[in-house]
Amino acid sequence: MIRAMTDDYGYPHRHLLGIQGLYPWQIKDLLDRADAYVDQCRSAEKKSDVLRGRSMVNLFYESSTRTRTSFELAGKRLGLDVINMGVSSSSVNKGETLIDTAVTLNAMHLDVLVVRHGDSGAVQLLSEKVNCAVVNAGDGSHEHPTQALLDALTIRRRKGHLDNLHVAICGDVLHSRVARSNIYLLTAMGARVRVIAPRTLLPSGIEELGVEVFTDMRAGLKDVDIVMMLRVQNERMAGSYIPSIREFFHFFGLDREKLALAKPDALIMHPGPMNRGVEIDSDVADDIERSVIREQVEMGVAVRMAVIDKLVLNAPNFANGAA
Amino acid sequence: MIRAMTDDYGYPHRHLLGIQGLYPWQIKDLLDRADAYVDQCRSAEKKSDVLRGRSMVNLFYESSTRTRTSFELAGKRLGLDVINMGVSSSSVNKGETLIDTAVTLNAMHLDVLVVRHGDSGAVQLLSEKVNCAVVNAGDGSHEHPTQALLDALTIRRRKGHLDNLHVAICGDVLHSRVARSNIYLLTAMGARVRVIAPRTLLPSGIEELGVEVFTDMRAGLKDVDIVMMLRVQNERMAGSYIPSIREFFHFFGLDREKLALAKPDALIMHPGPMNRGVEIDSDVADDIERSVIREQVEMGVAVRMAVIDKLVLNAPNFANGAA
Amino acid sequence: MIRAMTDDYGYPHRHLLGIQGLYPWQIKDLLDRADAYVDQCRSAEKKSDVLRGRSMVNLFYESSTRTRTSFELAGKRLGLDVINMGVSSSSVNKGETLIDTAVTLNAMHLDVLVVRHGDSGAVQLLSEKVNCAVVNAGDGSHEHPTQALLDALTIRRRKGHLDNLHVAICGDVLHSRVARSNIYLLTAMGARVRVIAPRTLLPSGIEELGVEVFTDMRAGLKDVDIVMMLRVQNERMAGSYIPSIREFFHFFGLDREKLALAKPDALIMHPGPMNRGVEIDSDVADDIERSVIREQVEMGVAVRMAVIDKLVLNAPNFANGAA
Repeated sequence: MIRAMTDDYGYPHRHLLGIQGLYPWQIKDLLDRADAYVDQCRSAEKKSDVLRGRSMVNLFYESSTRTRTSFELAGKRLGLDVINMGVSSSSVNKGETLIDTAVTLNAMHLDVLVVRHGDSGAVQLLSEKVNCAVVNAGDGSHEHPTQALLDALTIRRRKGHLDNLHVAICGDVLHSRVARSNIYLLTAMGARVRVIAPRTLLPSGIEELGVEVFTDMRAGLKDVDIVMMLRVQNERMAGSYIPSIREFFHFFGLDREKLALAKPDALIMHPGPMNRGVEIDSDVADDIERSVIREQVEMGVAVRMAVIDKLVLNAPNFANGAA
Repeated sequence: MIRAMTDDYGYPHRHLLGIQGLYPWQIKDLLDRADAYVDQCRSAEKKSDVLRGRSMVNLFYESSTRTRTSFELAGKRLGLDVINMGVSSSSVNKGETLIDTAVTLNAMHLDVLVVRHGDSGAVQLLSEKVNCAVVNAGDGSHEHPTQALLDALTIRRRKGHLDNLHVAICGDVLHSRVARSNIYLLTAMGARVRVIAPRTLLPSGIEELGVEVFTDMRAGLKDVDIVMMLRVQNERMAGSYIPSIREFFHFFGLDREKLALAKPDALIMHPGPMNRGVEIDSDVADDIERSVIREQVEMGVAVRMAVIDKLVLNAPNFANGAA
Repeated sequence: MIRAMTDDYGYPHRHLLGIQGLYPWQIKDLLDRADAYVDQCRSAEKKSDVLRGRSMVNLFYESSTRTRTSFELAGKRLGLDVINMGVSSSSVNKGETLIDTAVTLNAMHLDVLVVRHGDSGAVQLLSEKVNCAVVNAGDGSHEHPTQALLDALTIRRRKGHLDNLHVAICGDVLHSRVARSNIYLLTAMGARVRVIAPRTLLPSGIEELGVEVFTDMRAGLKDVDIVMMLRVQNERMAGSYIPSIREFFHFFGLDREKLALAKPDALIMHPGPMNRGVEIDSDVADDIERSVIREQVEMGVAVRMAVIDKLVLNAPNFANGAA
């Protein structure tokens, strides 16, 4: 098992490539740090100088408003200089390899490299070639660790704990790095996870991750504490996994009627951006009492500050070596 | 009438959605503040720390070099962290609604959200969903308030006052949010405004805004103090409002000969980017004495600093509430 | 001969438009300054406040990951506010002229304008219209001065000197601004430069720049100290200068066998991004002892810091004049 926050040279916490392999105490430590950053972001003086002068690059091979913006804000609020590199304006077009891009950026003495890539494992490959800390901002259908951390922080702040909660993850589990990272994190922290999806949107062997599997949403939602909806990734579904949007919503979309099967104080979560009327009904998404979708976004900045802070402070001092 | 700089909760100056509804003293106050920022921008130390640590997002659904850059510079020179979100790299592509984007950004605890959008009213809609200050950077053919403020500042610095000046606004009035904002501002400040355009480029009911209407440019320019040309918005003219560029220039393009009808010291203005040879002759655009087109750009940064500064300092303190 | 770092008003070092025309002492001064910045970038505190509050714009009419990022990092590490303007999101689409864009940016009181443009001479044209310092980040097939400076710094740090070294510049010399700037710089500093290329990729009159010309790579590489490979610019070769990629690699690609003809301690250089297997073999590109390709990238940030620093500090004080 890969220890995601340890590297080959024995430095702990050099990268955050995934949740898989993190110890519970490491997860708890990141959540505790993030709690403090929530307060900082809510105050007028949102910015600290902890990491002033450090350099961070957002290397996004897939476009994403919210994740890129959240990381950019997190970096800037810690005092780093943040540079965005999107695919369209990058030399990917010129045919440079991923590794050469990584090596090039590394030579510029970055401290943090945040990477989103369409291929599972691309971020790990890249992390092996650089001295700086790498944060996986989503790679293919592999992992999206900061999403799982922000989800956990949102739950913990509302429910007071993670252990023994019943969490249902519903929808397109097959293509979802969000589902995967959440399963790793929640099971590691003692929560009881169910996945709910049509057979065609379930990866084979999912049971081995320690989750219960439901193909009927009403059965799956019974008495859960948390209903975590997944985005229907239209852009990823090359094959026809779903007969129709209408049919999908009928069977797997979250509405009041299905939600009534969960506990009365169940929280409603979604990683965004939402397809209203596809995987979630607007009425439910905007439920003032139980929907914590906005809080998830808020926790996202704080969690990313915690991750960046932790990784940079733990980084090996390469002050006197050329990259 | 909507009070553009007042919100429902009684906080004055929370947003700047338009000029319509501003009191003259509010306009004067912004121009006075901007004057001070002109001096700051001309000095070597262009940057102050007034708003250090605050966060600003430029959310542009339409691309624009000069306006986005001007706002970005204004924000950075006040010490804010500025993040750009262009449409192309945003989740608009993923089908998220405008409101969800607003709510998401709001949850990240922004202080200022600068928005340009192709639809009239979109910025107002968005402003109702967020805690931060919203600045309209142009919405459809509705308003572009900072453009009107920078135009007013340019005029006031050259002429010493705004009242009783005769101002001609010429060209594509129908599609122009610049024209609309300028009409509101200039009439509020006591200037006498004329619009000059072919019938097909005049909105119906324009007279009700208190302007004189001319369809003959020579008649309209007679003895004016200010000639404010509008950009021909080729990209907006789906229908064929203009017979041909050549014919348009002949009748409504500003050249030396038509300019001779204005007062000898009349100022020449254009919001940019110019279509030289379409709505304005190069010879006139580059007139050293009377063209103030470059000054307009300079005033733009100062005016935006004043607006951002004013709105943030007047913002309600939402330090202890989640977004 | 144009003195690239002197302007018409007698201020030395106002712009860096090219290497042609620089005095050897000016080149040496920039390299010496860059040496100090290498140390700064290798330390934890990479950022200084030398130019805090100054404003810089990256105006890129051609996309480029590495050069834009390198300039952006350089600017930020000196404390400047850096704003990116790419073509795609710029008003080039709206038909504004290069000059009008320059004049507009100038009116915003920039200190540094970094420009990349597809046309030779465009940057010079633009520099004549602005008060701020202009740095050429590559214009057509004309010059790319910071690339030549970073190459020289890399060589000088490895070899201890530039004079009397034998340098071979190999590949698509015809389209290469990198080749041109390197020829000017290296010959000015007393190195002995050879160019190696097929006849179709050699500009006419290249001999007049004081270089030896080879059309046979094996003959050209004989006993050189430095092998500087050029990128095959597929995107520039409208005509068919090269029979085929395979044939090009066979005759002009750098591999172990051809490299064996150079001195045993010859350095291998490439401006990036590399087309592995086209102009350079992976085996050679990744040679731990002799390939200095990563160091070139590292030196790039330091050289750009030195250039920006030098130009801004030498800029005329235009504190009290409108742009």
